[in-house]
Amino acid sequence: MNLKPRLASLHKKVDQALDRWLPGEKTKPKTLHTAMRYSVFAGGKRLRPVLCLAAAEACGGTISSAMPSACAIECIHTYSLVHDDLPCMDDDDLRRGRPTTHKVFGEGIAVLTGDALLTVAFEILARTKATARHGMGDFFCELSKAAGSSHLIGGQVADVEAENQKVSPAGLEFIHLGKTAAMISVSLRLGAMSANATHAECRSLGKFGTHLGLAFQIVDDILDITQTSEQLGKSAGKDAAAGKATYPAVFGLEKSRKEAARHTNLALWALKPFGERAAFLRGLADYLLSREF
Amino acid sequence: MNLKPRLASLHKKVDQALDRWLPGEKTKPKTLHTAMRYSVFAGGKRLRPVLCLAAAEACGGTISSAMPSACAIECIHTYSLVHDDLPCMDDDDLRRGRPTTHKVFGEGIAVLTGDALLTVAFEILARTKATARHGMGDFFCELSKAAGSSHLIGGQVADVEAENQKVSPAGLEFIHLGKTAAMISVSLRLGAMSANATHAECRSLGKFGTHLGLAFQIVDDILDITQTSEQLGKSAGKDAAAGKATYPAVFGLEKSRKEAARHTNLALWALKPFGERAAFLRGLADYLLSREF
Repeated sequence: MNLKPRLASLHKKVDQALDRWLPGEKTKPKTLHTAMRYSVFAGGKRLRPVLCLAAAEACGGTISSAMPSACAIECIHTYSLVHDDLPCMDDDDLRRGRPTTHKVFGEGIAVLTGDALLTVAFEILARTKATARHGMGDFFCELSKAAGSSHLIGGQVADVEAENQKVSPAGLEFIHLGKTAAMISVSLRLGAMSANATHAECRSLGKFGTHLGLAFQIVDDILDITQTSEQLGKSAGKDAAAGKATYPAVFGLEKSRKEAARHTNLALWALKPFGERAAFLRGLADYLLSREF
Repeated sequence: MNLKPRLASLHKKVDQALDRWLPGEKTKPKTLHTAMRYSVFAGGKRLRPVLCLAAAEACGGTISSAMPSACAIECIHTYSLVHDDLPCMDDDDLRRGRPTTHKVFGEGIAVLTGDALLTVAFEILARTKATARHGMGDFFCELSKAAGSSHLIGGQVADVEAENQKVSPAGLEFIHLGKTAAMISVSLRLGAMSANATHAECRSLGKFGTHLGLAFQIVDDILDITQTSEQLGKSAGKDAAAGKATYPAVFGLEKSRKEAARHTNLALWALKPFGERAAFLRGLADYLLSREF
């Protein structure tokens, strides 16, 4: 399977759709729309939308029917980064080597840019079509729940509150399920839904996403302490310096490696029913989790 | 027509529905859910949801079918206040005599509380039912556009950018259409849509909302300079002190009064086709605009 060209092609299609569906930079107010595009086209990997499109294909659907979901998810992912980077949150000046949104446009505009990306996500999602098994309301319900106060936002709150505190394994899992796994899982479920997948297929792909997200996060946590800043392309040891709740901090390095392997296996197990149709998803999982750790 | 008891009864129904549909304070993370409820149950007038419910009734629909739209709109209105009050925006310590969300819970949690209220709005809206004339996608499209970068958020950006600048009448209208009129207009349109109103009815009520919103904003602007803090129940002269773009600042007091009257007439004119069915809406408009100015 030729993973990289396929990845690049889907990445490009997502970027083209985002470019089409986001308001132009000349639309009033220009500052806001410029800031929205600055944030969205900042060199992201488009992991979540690619997983969404791949899930649709694995269920016999088309890229184009899954595209509104894919782009809505990427807008929500981007808004969450813009708000997380704010001085009153993680206070980051750089993201992927570029100044963060609030460094370029100021804090007030960065808050509003995040708000606008979150809002436009639902406007873009309204382009999706209901299928025989999944109504429009189901798409909105799934996405708003994954992005909401018990998952994406809830995870961020718990993460902030856990800084420099003793965190239980359950508390750690709540943070990572919310901050990482929920949005990856919903990416796969929405892709499947747009392909009119059965409820069993949606559940399997959702499970794949949850375990993939957790494994991905654990590997990230491990790399933060085992690699140099040069290897990572970003400052290493940041989590420990900020007193963040991470897998190695709670479980130690050895147990963390085992947890990563366990979630990887559970993720791949969830793809079993799809056989060959999930080859690309399997390839993506291998690719994401193959970083040395 | 006995306006006040009717208003109070609808207000109460909205509060009950919000209480039912917002996550409980004991749901994890507790801080976030407590902050969400602190912000929503802060003594707001529930103007937008009441207009939404009244529009549904004027079109022959029921309160209960319009309730998801009404509550979604109130959550979005509340989130916009929480974010507007932030230190990096209007920097307000008090709202309706109570400390603002960030004063109580901190800035980071206030940003996330606003995010969560915006997100839960779409989860609540997913409870609405499509009607013969209006699909689920139409509800989401209308609400996300009104709350989005060209209206609610765009108006706030333009407002921030206009501070201490010379603003044209068109620039001023962009701000007030976005910040105030768009959400009032969509309240009426969603209420009408939930009642399966004709497109002409939706348009008329939307127009009523736009002019009502503008008239309301102009009166607010006028009162800020003609009344004392005691009369207003909040600090008077705040707009001028902040160098805000207001109607009196751009047009002068006399012309502003005429504009308020003109928009009031246009609002009432838009209700003509509804005859007696719009009696409560007319009463609400009178009530909102009857403040001395």
